[in-house]
Amino acid sequence: MKYIAHINVMPHKELLDPQGKAVNNSLHNLGLSQIQDVRIGKHITLNIEAGTKEAAAQLAEDACKKLLANQVMEAFEVSVIEG
Amino acid sequence: MKYIAHINVMPHKELLDPQGKAVNNSLHNLGLSQIQDVRIGKHITLNIEAGTKEAAAQLAEDACKKLLANQVMEAFEVSVIEG
Repeated sequence: MKYIAHINVMPHKELLDPQGKAVNNSLHNLGLSQIQDVRIGKHITLNIEAGTKEAAAQLAEDACKKLLANQVMEAFEVSVIEG
Repeated sequence: MKYIAHINVMPHKELLDPQGKAVNNSLHNLGLSQIQDVRIGKHITLNIEAGTKEAAAQLAEDACKKLLANQVMEAFEVSVIEG
C-alpha cells in the first residue's frame, strides 16, 4: 500500500535559530510586529510503499535518523497518512 | 491572546525539486528503496499576538505573502492553534 509521510525537522528549542531571527526582524520591518519567535525548519514529504501504516512510519523514522535530521541540533516529528 | 501558527511552504507539484531528488537518491543508497517522491520545503512556526484566531491566521497569511513564500514557485498552508 501507498502511504504519505509528512515530516517536520525543527531546530531544538534550546538552540539559537539565526535564520528565524533574521526573518523575525524582516517581518517587523514590514510592519508585522505582532509576530514573534520565528523558527524555521524543514518540511519533507515522502511517498512510501509499505505493508502497514506502522511499517511506513518506521521507514520514515529510519530516514530521519539516517539522513534527514541531525539529531544533535534538530528534532523531528513524523505523521503518516494513507496516500 | 497568543497564537502559534504552523506554516508549510512547499515547492509547487509541477516544479522539479532538485534537493528532494538528491535526498531520494541518497535514501535509496542507504537501502530505503521503498521511499519515493521526496519533496522538501520549509516548516515555519510563528508566535502571534492577536485578538482572535482569524486575525492571527490573517497575519500569518500576510507574512507568507510578503516574505515567507515565493508564490511563483511555492505554495503555503497555514494552521493556527492557541498557544
